[in-house]
Amino acid sequence: MNDAYYMDFALNLARGTAGQTSPNPVVGAVLVKDNQIIGMGAHLKAGEPHAEVHAIRMAGEKVQGSTLYVTLEPCSHYGKTPPCSDLVIKSGIKKVFVATTDPNPRVAGTGIERMEQAGIEVEIGLLEQEARELNKVFFYNIQTGLPYVTLKSAVTLDGKTATVTGDSMWITGEEARADVHQFRHQHDGILVGVNTVLADNPSLTTRLSNGGKNPIRIILDTHLRTPEEAKIVTDKEAPTWIITGSEIDVEKEKIFRNAGIEIIKMAGKSISIKEMLKVVGERGITSLFVEGGAEVHGSFLKERAFQQLISYIAPKLIGGKLAPSSFGGPGMEMMAEAIDLNLKQVDLIGRDVRIIAEPR
Amino acid sequence: MNDAYYMDFALNLARGTAGQTSPNPVVGAVLVKDNQIIGMGAHLKAGEPHAEVHAIRMAGEKVQGSTLYVTLEPCSHYGKTPPCSDLVIKSGIKKVFVATTDPNPRVAGTGIERMEQAGIEVEIGLLEQEARELNKVFFYNIQTGLPYVTLKSAVTLDGKTATVTGDSMWITGEEARADVHQFRHQHDGILVGVNTVLADNPSLTTRLSNGGKNPIRIILDTHLRTPEEAKIVTDKEAPTWIITGSEIDVEKEKIFRNAGIEIIKMAGKSISIKEMLKVVGERGITSLFVEGGAEVHGSFLKERAFQQLISYIAPKLIGGKLAPSSFGGPGMEMMAEAIDLNLKQVDLIGRDVRIIAEPR
Repeated sequence: MNDAYYMDFALNLARGTAGQTSPNPVVGAVLVKDNQIIGMGAHLKAGEPHAEVHAIRMAGEKVQGSTLYVTLEPCSHYGKTPPCSDLVIKSGIKKVFVATTDPNPRVAGTGIERMEQAGIEVEIGLLEQEARELNKVFFYNIQTGLPYVTLKSAVTLDGKTATVTGDSMWITGEEARADVHQFRHQHDGILVGVNTVLADNPSLTTRLSNGGKNPIRIILDTHLRTPEEAKIVTDKEAPTWIITGSEIDVEKEKIFRNAGIEIIKMAGKSISIKEMLKVVGERGITSLFVEGGAEVHGSFLKERAFQQLISYIAPKLIGGKLAPSSFGGPGMEMMAEAIDLNLKQVDLIGRDVRIIAEPR
Repeated sequence: MNDAYYMDFALNLARGTAGQTSPNPVVGAVLVKDNQIIGMGAHLKAGEPHAEVHAIRMAGEKVQGSTLYVTLEPCSHYGKTPPCSDLVIKSGIKKVFVATTDPNPRVAGTGIERMEQAGIEVEIGLLEQEARELNKVFFYNIQTGLPYVTLKSAVTLDGKTATVTGDSMWITGEEARADVHQFRHQHDGILVGVNTVLADNPSLTTRLSNGGKNPIRIILDTHLRTPEEAKIVTDKEAPTWIITGSEIDVEKEKIFRNAGIEIIKMAGKSISIKEMLKVVGERGITSLFVEGGAEVHGSFLKERAFQQLISYIAPKLIGGKLAPSSFGGPGMEMMAEAIDLNLKQVDLIGRDVRIIAEPR
């Protein structure tokens, strides 16, 4: 076994908790002594012990003289729990591998400094890329204050999201639809436009065979056209926020507020995507899963306001010059203006192809 | 080494000649004796020796008592060359592995019968699926008399073939465009609609770094709107056939005929895809590469008149509600009517994703 093996193991511990630690990052830790794993742990939930604490507890007295592999720099501040760097020092750990430093500029490096001053040997950067990828949402959010935005689309192989008559049941197969619910589970917020609410009356909840965490439902609805009887208004399954322009019907606004719906008015008559992201970021949304429709995707594209695209492509053809596609809006005029993406993953999910890409 | 190893080797010999044997199938043959390859060959060009002949010549006197691995049943008829089954018998080969029988119902099995009657042990079906896949164009054509139709599309990740202003230079990268030329090289005919001729004035030739075979250029042009100065009319790089409806300008027709262009009139005022396929099939087109545009693809989709789809997906977004997509036409009304495809291959070609699929 080598150091990368143990760090990879720690990364897998962290990976398993994706979606349950927000607004905290996912973190895994492994303690090794004499080529034996003597402790392991992951941060499970904000407010609960950090990964290092679990691993050290599991190791008990054996921790003395051991090596710690941790996917993120141990914290150095009193938050909801005491600083992990102090615990590491007290426990007698003699060497620490840190995959990546804390992205928060105010914290970065101080946990490492403390440990080094206490005579612990610290190595930084083992599997750093994997560790950063794992917490890309957290890193982006902590550095910008904005949610990490993922646009999701599901299209036929000829790029349609529905037939000419608007029928879209179903584009993708069961496995791909379950995969979407896994992503909903991992996001703080899910966003659609009011046209999707009007057309499909979706519940926008996470429906996985073992349950799942519902994201906060965010509707872009400039003129507050959401029907009072829409599922997202009446079902109480998850909080619903409706983002509107500055000019909406005051009576209807009252009815929604009384129904427990948050109405968030933008400064202007229309909704600015960037302003909206700032506002929901301030309200604690660190990750946003945007499910369309075409006009909403077009708006995010126009503002270049997204960090990731997940596109499901079903092996089906439906044709139709007037059948809708995944990105509407005015669009670019020239190919040279196209937003270039890097393919991150291309996978088969059931019978569908899933492409994950990021703007270059 | 086992039998599958040698048959796989023979399949690879055949694979290398894709695109140069039409209207004949590709065929590979390997001769083995005492676990040594003593001869190998592939059919190179219609009218030239078959694969078995090359392999037997290479083996010389050693052929006596050897085993033949051949990807297609040796022929039993006098065509441009004498029957291979007779040569196999005369040469003293003692055992023959045949991957697949001849698809032509009049011929199927007779080559095998002859060899068996002569006391040769014959085994059929080793790597049969691979062998049939390799000659799927030939098999389809010989059984139907129609060309094997491949629809090709190249789209952005949001399913567009051009921006709202019509700019499409370039959707895909250099590698994918070279890949398209490889497919052109392998097809007897290339087909586009007159709108593509009017918009792009393409040459529709095969431009590979080592040259390549130009397919016959076939234009669907109901009202003979192709300009007299279009490259496909004037460049003499390859034959051009223009398929028209029954009512076209006689003077313009004459001009085109004088320029060496074939004008092929359909029976009706508009072009029936099925009639067109029958006519070009009768004229020797065994494989047809359809490069669009959207209306042409829509017509083939409506008639379900295609055997394969090759879609290049570029990791780019351009948006635009009005930007064109790869399949136009009226389209299906309900998702239940969608044409289901089987994914055959999903590959990265340069930075683009290439999906090859077949109707189920």
